[in-house]
Amino acid sequence: MNHFERALELAERGRGKTGDHPLVGAVLVQGDEVVGEGWYEYELVRHAEVAALEQAGERARGATLYVTLEPCSHHGRTPPCADAVVEAGVARVVVGACDPNPVVDGRGIERLREAGIEVELLDDLASRRQNEAWRVWKGLGRPFVTYKAAISLDGRVTVPGRRWVSGEESRRRVHELRAAADAVAVGMGTVRADEPRLDARDVDAVRQPRRLAFGRGPLPEGSELELRSGALADELSELAAEGVQSLLLEGGPTLATAFLEADYVDKLLLFVAPVLAGEGPHVVGELTRSLELLHLRAEPCGEDLLVEAYLHEP
Amino acid sequence: MNHFERALELAERGRGKTGDHPLVGAVLVQGDEVVGEGWYEYELVRHAEVAALEQAGERARGATLYVTLEPCSHHGRTPPCADAVVEAGVARVVVGACDPNPVVDGRGIERLREAGIEVELLDDLASRRQNEAWRVWKGLGRPFVTYKAAISLDGRVTVPGRRWVSGEESRRRVHELRAAADAVAVGMGTVRADEPRLDARDVDAVRQPRRLAFGRGPLPEGSELELRSGALADELSELAAEGVQSLLLEGGPTLATAFLEADYVDKLLLFVAPVLAGEGPHVVGELTRSLELLHLRAEPCGEDLLVEAYLHEP
Repeated sequence: MNHFERALELAERGRGKTGDHPLVGAVLVQGDEVVGEGWYEYELVRHAEVAALEQAGERARGATLYVTLEPCSHHGRTPPCADAVVEAGVARVVVGACDPNPVVDGRGIERLREAGIEVELLDDLASRRQNEAWRVWKGLGRPFVTYKAAISLDGRVTVPGRRWVSGEESRRRVHELRAAADAVAVGMGTVRADEPRLDARDVDAVRQPRRLAFGRGPLPEGSELELRSGALADELSELAAEGVQSLLLEGGPTLATAFLEADYVDKLLLFVAPVLAGEGPHVVGELTRSLELLHLRAEPCGEDLLVEAYLHEP
Repeated sequence: MNHFERALELAERGRGKTGDHPLVGAVLVQGDEVVGEGWYEYELVRHAEVAALEQAGERARGATLYVTLEPCSHHGRTPPCADAVVEAGVARVVVGACDPNPVVDGRGIERLREAGIEVELLDDLASRRQNEAWRVWKGLGRPFVTYKAAISLDGRVTVPGRRWVSGEESRRRVHELRAAADAVAVGMGTVRADEPRLDARDVDAVRQPRRLAFGRGPLPEGSELELRSGALADELSELAAEGVQSLLLEGGPTLATAFLEADYVDKLLLFVAPVLAGEGPHVVGELTRSLELLHLRAEPCGEDLLVEAYLHEP
């Protein structure tokens, strides 16, 4: 593992503990020696870079800082990290990704360069993916939307005679996805057909996601879902304002197709089961235009495949 | 690599050179030492086991033979291999897969056991896959059928505005598949829409596959395809009798669905492109029953995914 990968790994320690803030990891290297490490957690208050600098003390002078996200340049709960990096005498900074926050966006890097520090911006996929939800939420003012579906290899969302399309391991992963999402949503067709609970079960969930139904009409009696019946754009803005960074869309195809048409889907996660269903609705309906995907990949998930793709560069 | 994997690797040397016979590889081990190796090629006449035994000479006595396919028990172009193994004094034989040839099926193993040789039958997937086409041809009297299609992630076989659904690497792989198949086939819908040549281009093809169109009605003028207009069962029996072990079905969905309904598809190979098409025909049409798949897996193929699954245990 190189120093930058170590910084990405450190950043992950903050997963679920950063509040409205992004994951950040930092490694400070003097010659061949790691002299400081840090990561961000909301309750630690201290930013990742500052933690690494404090650990290094005088050895930060002339060192190289590897940091997964551009150091901040503004006063928030803490003073600007960029200033701390300059004051510590760091010689070189390797930055994973720019901060999409309009208050920062490039100013942190500019501040470092003005002080004579050599800055290398990697702008790499791993750094951007690490905060993919936060980046969309901060940069576009709407939640990062993942459309998750379980499908047959012929792209159908139901299989005759099967309660579930996908296998046990895939269903377990869905509960992990719910536990990691700020909100989970379905359309009214799915509400009426399945009355889904949408909660994260049998996983180590810090808190349950908000559970939403998009559409019109009355919810079934006893449903614990929140009904969001406004225009998608308005509902998404409102959810973002309420702190919903990530929305897991669980279908059905009608709602997903509406989200896709409006360009509100960021990522597809398809659990593909080893079966040809031969009938039933397809995972995506008719679109008025084709949509290019990025970073298509697949991994085994029990006997299923988990296929992932992005609609926009993360 | 263990001895058995080495035997599988040796067998591959015969790929394309075994005529109507299967690939076979053999490794003979005395203590820790490999004392003989062999593989089958039609022109060498000698079977893999016999080649390994001849190489070992007296050192075959008390040795262990690793062989990918059950040794034959009948007189063909050569005397029965099982007899040669017994005569050489081999103590133990590890067999990859049974021979589906009705003339052999288990009798080779029986012959060895009767002679007091310890026999372990692995019946492993790698051995069965190595001769998957030959096994179906020999065991069922029809060609092994692979349905290959290039699709969008939403399972459509065309994408608006694109000449090809899949990328360059996938298209190159299709020519390799054609070069490895005994015959390539499409339905009349595809013939009329695309007038495909179906030949293997820009690859190192020993010989071109036979190029077939299934269906009724006249072929377009100048078409070099053979028209097969009989019942599928009859056509497949006839092709098998003519030596066609493997048939690559290239669509369209109507023909593929007919093959699937009749349970004549053995394997699916889907080149999945990173795009949602949003319109156009789906890769598999309506089926009267769902079809379970086996050994579902995916690998990157350029920017596409190559997804593979079996309809029957190979």
